[in-house]
Amino acid sequence: MPDTATTLPFTHVLAVDIGGTKVDAALVSVEGEVERASVARRPTGREADRAQIARYVREAAVAALAAVPGARVGAIGVGSAGPVDLPSRSVSPLNLPLAAGLQIDEVLDGLVDGPIHLALDGTCIALAEHWRGALVGCHDAMAIVVSTGVGGGFVLAGEPVRGASGNAGHLGQIFVRTIDDGEVVASTLEAVAAGPGTVAWARAQGWEGLTGLDLAASHAAGDDIAVRAVRRSATAVGQAIAAAATLCDLEAVAIAGGFSQVAPDYIDQVRAAAQAASLHAYARRCRIVGSGLDGDGPLLGAAALALQA
Amino acid sequence: MPDTATTLPFTHVLAVDIGGTKVDAALVSVEGEVERASVARRPTGREADRAQIARYVREAAVAALAAVPGARVGAIGVGSAGPVDLPSRSVSPLNLPLAAGLQIDEVLDGLVDGPIHLALDGTCIALAEHWRGALVGCHDAMAIVVSTGVGGGFVLAGEPVRGASGNAGHLGQIFVRTIDDGEVVASTLEAVAAGPGTVAWARAQGWEGLTGLDLAASHAAGDDIAVRAVRRSATAVGQAIAAAATLCDLEAVAIAGGFSQVAPDYIDQVRAAAQAASLHAYARRCRIVGSGLDGDGPLLGAAALALQA
Repeated sequence: MPDTATTLPFTHVLAVDIGGTKVDAALVSVEGEVERASVARRPTGREADRAQIARYVREAAVAALAAVPGARVGAIGVGSAGPVDLPSRSVSPLNLPLAAGLQIDEVLDGLVDGPIHLALDGTCIALAEHWRGALVGCHDAMAIVVSTGVGGGFVLAGEPVRGASGNAGHLGQIFVRTIDDGEVVASTLEAVAAGPGTVAWARAQGWEGLTGLDLAASHAAGDDIAVRAVRRSATAVGQAIAAAATLCDLEAVAIAGGFSQVAPDYIDQVRAAAQAASLHAYARRCRIVGSGLDGDGPLLGAAALALQA
Repeated sequence: MPDTATTLPFTHVLAVDIGGTKVDAALVSVEGEVERASVARRPTGREADRAQIARYVREAAVAALAAVPGARVGAIGVGSAGPVDLPSRSVSPLNLPLAAGLQIDEVLDGLVDGPIHLALDGTCIALAEHWRGALVGCHDAMAIVVSTGVGGGFVLAGEPVRGASGNAGHLGQIFVRTIDDGEVVASTLEAVAAGPGTVAWARAQGWEGLTGLDLAASHAAGDDIAVRAVRRSATAVGQAIAAAATLCDLEAVAIAGGFSQVAPDYIDQVRAAAQAASLHAYARRCRIVGSGLDGDGPLLGAAALALQA
């Protein structure tokens, strides 16, 4: 993408990231710089209905567009929490239950003289890591986010993979029956291994903290339950990555998201679990690394989506 | 592919399928017809060393090429049991342990004035189903084979997916911890659910048959162990398909292979298990169907590989 930047008839794209608690928008230069002054945020949340979410998304976009005088904005890229439905150009994020069926083209209609590109947030993260992060130069790779949920996306043969409805890469939605030494969980990877599920498990064992940050502090202090809780999350994530690496023959997986920083060796633990669950040399060769991006990943990914097309 | 057939400067491709017990070769017309007179088979097997396997593969290819006077053969397509290593153009089938590192270009050197295309056998099956079988018209789909092993391949965004080393789609190599109601297996899907593993499980329960055909007969007669053995295989396959459909957002999965015919309702059972393990509507929408091909699938797929490029 950087190579083509100089030939584009515009200077910026509008990047929009729709999540379960907030929507972010920003102008991103065709060289991949997020314009700090343009970053605009509005709340979303479980209680907001579709009209409210639509208004917040549009407000954030309008604010971002107004912030950089002289910018020529040629396209919009939108990443959204899933599930998405690309054929109908709508999104129905799990954590925005009252906004199901949000029509992206309607929400952003008329703001920019150019196309609107839509993808799963996980696809955007994969594009961002592939463009400017830990997956630069990779041909077949995955990025995942371990946070309040577990999401992900693929770049295969150098291209983003969307799947039939746009949800390819949704690693957190895989069904997990048991983890580690036989604990029966029968749930999604996300419910088992993301921050909230890990905190809930630790509390069920008698730990008294409330948040992922509390858990990180207890882990740092050597608390036994916290240590086991983190290991349980990392093991489940590693096993799921092993399945993805086996099934899609990946050269690398980049792990982003706040909860992946709950312990300094979280990614090492994920790697060890993935190695143990990878029965073929080709899957064991898959590199598992931390994100190469700071918090701009989602916006950079939405921008990459707009620039790619 | 059929659309371009009339513009190709040749009439046929040479298709080669390297498996654990045999190698098949045949000429396939650019319209997709396997030339019956050209089908040539040689043995492979666990005891054959690399030089022997190389000789058998080349013999089969030479025999196929000699069988159709006037054929103009413009390319070779080779599907091989995995793992394969496309970067080094070599294959190391699990069931041909003495042939590891077989160099395909050396084996087939000079036989045809045209390129040699190599892929995992599962990739070829997916191409075949996509070209002329149950996946015609699909954009994002998978084909799997349940036989003495469990293999598979992807077509995503209308294109075959190879992965970093060529092994994408290898569903049977996913690690399975437990199946059904908590039985701990801790093995590959292939070991659990393919014919040999299913027969072994049934025998461990006291069933006295020896083969998949025996198991089919016992199942047809209503034998309780056989019924449970078949359900166990179908459940494990269905759960793995659910993971693949969730992860890659597939519109359809086609199931081929002799063991998938062990019971008339085997595919129905796979479908039910996949539905139960698919937690998102987009994954539950994935159609699970029987193969649309007869036994020519592997050769047609190798031919599709040669014609696609």
